[in-house]
Amino acid sequence: MRALTLVRYARALLLLALLSFGGQAFAQGDPLPSWNEGAAKQAILKFVETTTMQGGPSFVPPAERIATFDQDGTLWVEHPMYTQIVYCFERVPAVVKAKPELANVEPFKTVMSGNREAIAKLTTNDLVKILAATLTGMSVDDFRAEAKKWLDTARDPRWKRPFTELTYLPMQEVLKYLRANGYRTYIVTGGGQDFVRIYADEVYGIPPEQVVGTAAGTKYGYTKSGKPFLTKEPNLLLNDNNAGKVEGMYLMIGRRPFAAFGNSTGDRQMLEYTKAGTGERLAMLVLHDDAQREYAYGPAQGLPASKVGTFTQALYNEAIKQGWIVISMKNDWKRIFSFEP
Amino acid sequence: MRALTLVRYARALLLLALLSFGGQAFAQGDPLPSWNEGAAKQAILKFVETTTMQGGPSFVPPAERIATFDQDGTLWVEHPMYTQIVYCFERVPAVVKAKPELANVEPFKTVMSGNREAIAKLTTNDLVKILAATLTGMSVDDFRAEAKKWLDTARDPRWKRPFTELTYLPMQEVLKYLRANGYRTYIVTGGGQDFVRIYADEVYGIPPEQVVGTAAGTKYGYTKSGKPFLTKEPNLLLNDNNAGKVEGMYLMIGRRPFAAFGNSTGDRQMLEYTKAGTGERLAMLVLHDDAQREYAYGPAQGLPASKVGTFTQALYNEAIKQGWIVISMKNDWKRIFSFEP
Repeated sequence: MRALTLVRYARALLLLALLSFGGQAFAQGDPLPSWNEGAAKQAILKFVETTTMQGGPSFVPPAERIATFDQDGTLWVEHPMYTQIVYCFERVPAVVKAKPELANVEPFKTVMSGNREAIAKLTTNDLVKILAATLTGMSVDDFRAEAKKWLDTARDPRWKRPFTELTYLPMQEVLKYLRANGYRTYIVTGGGQDFVRIYADEVYGIPPEQVVGTAAGTKYGYTKSGKPFLTKEPNLLLNDNNAGKVEGMYLMIGRRPFAAFGNSTGDRQMLEYTKAGTGERLAMLVLHDDAQREYAYGPAQGLPASKVGTFTQALYNEAIKQGWIVISMKNDWKRIFSFEP
Repeated sequence: MRALTLVRYARALLLLALLSFGGQAFAQGDPLPSWNEGAAKQAILKFVETTTMQGGPSFVPPAERIATFDQDGTLWVEHPMYTQIVYCFERVPAVVKAKPELANVEPFKTVMSGNREAIAKLTTNDLVKILAATLTGMSVDDFRAEAKKWLDTARDPRWKRPFTELTYLPMQEVLKYLRANGYRTYIVTGGGQDFVRIYADEVYGIPPEQVVGTAAGTKYGYTKSGKPFLTKEPNLLLNDNNAGKVEGMYLMIGRRPFAAFGNSTGDRQMLEYTKAGTGERLAMLVLHDDAQREYAYGPAQGLPASKVGTFTQALYNEAIKQGWIVISMKNDWKRIFSFEP
């Protein structure tokens, strides 16, 4: 009786010790169940195995295990328009209401007209004015509250779901698999850092300090009652796209990633820089080639090169040349969304 | 016999389980042995206890446990000159050797002359030129290698030791104590982010991604053989001092700290912003009032207000008014350096 109690006790403690010593290492089963067997899935599994094998030639110490992910088009749907751009356009009426003098000023007049043809013709300069008017000039807390409210209610036109549900299940599995193996996962996005930080923790399990994005300045000031607060300013600090992604990682992380994931020409330098590091490095590109389950755009696809994440033939050629692995949504992903079978 | 083996086995497992479940919670003894008993030490202990007490009214979830530390004058000696400024001055000969045309250009000519009186009269504009010449224009890897080499050999004039040994033992204890209780410790310095990142991990156990400092831009480019690299540029992205510290924390961390430590007017806004958060917050200022064991500068001290971390009477008054706790090096610290008894 006494011995039996001890056996039970020892078993319970053994279980406890195993769990607390990183049960993941003992976990059974496929960490990437939404992936079809193939080169892409194998590359991810092999990368994690070799870089976490203590004593192996490609072992990476836990402190250096950094993996970076583009967001729009890599972790969630970016077509037909970046979510943040949708937010900015939908925010215009509130801005015009607060500043009625804008109602007759372009590009706000065109946006307010609702004329889709005219809106589609807006220039980059017009867009910059819309971004400045909707993303700056308010306190960081007010911005957060407004954008959060919008994200909770806005719906994607195709799936009729919150944008925050349109994440790719296979990529969510990659994030979790990497983290379970000691990698810290970062978002490195051309999108607004402030915007992405609002939902990244809830949606991806990525905390604000691990979101690097395009960032403008803030200005410290005080309320009438003397409480300090920050106002969002229009001066651009970091254009976190193309080479800016590498510059942004240097500024915000100070380390070179061991794995990087993207889907467009804006991610080229991030992948290039990642692969240029010593040891085992993983660079992957999501190719949108699934018109049925998501969208098809990119080289030799049905859709014309769009303004969102452009996957050109040149990028494809570069990937082949550099040993970056192209993920075919159509062939490599068994499931795309968690809400679909 | 069998039962005895099991008892031993169970004990071993219990120990294992305790250790892996955060043995710190069970650790005996004083976590701040270099501190004298007093209000400062008690404030730190009470802050950690109340913010980590599960179910308590001031409990802070682990993900939000952020503590920020100024560096120069707060974690290590800043008098009579910031270490990085010493580096920049001592680097001038190498810069002039590489670009001989600078030998007859001010302020390089004066620095090369070795005339201390003339050097002391250099203006802020002169200093900016020296910083630009010694901190920019090279690859980030070359800068790192050069500065690392210097740090390994340079000696402080008073203690004849590497600058990296002149850290305050009581503050090292605070860093460790906070980390052992789930806090992530950040450096938020007016000094150069790149410079501090070189040694922060080794000296304080603070990894590069947790160092926020004054930062200039970088530029992505390629070597002749096509290898990508970053060059340090002179354009200032973040002046991480005064209000810039709060703006820098917002950019780089995206969270408000629960505890902040400084020693000068440059830290005022960081402490103010920290204390303006909800719940239990800790703001502390190191007062240099120990002319014998370190230096005495600040209000009513022996030394005149210097260019390094200025602790004015106004700052002292503000601290008292706002409930920031002043740490007297003389009275609160039993030991100052690990190399002294």
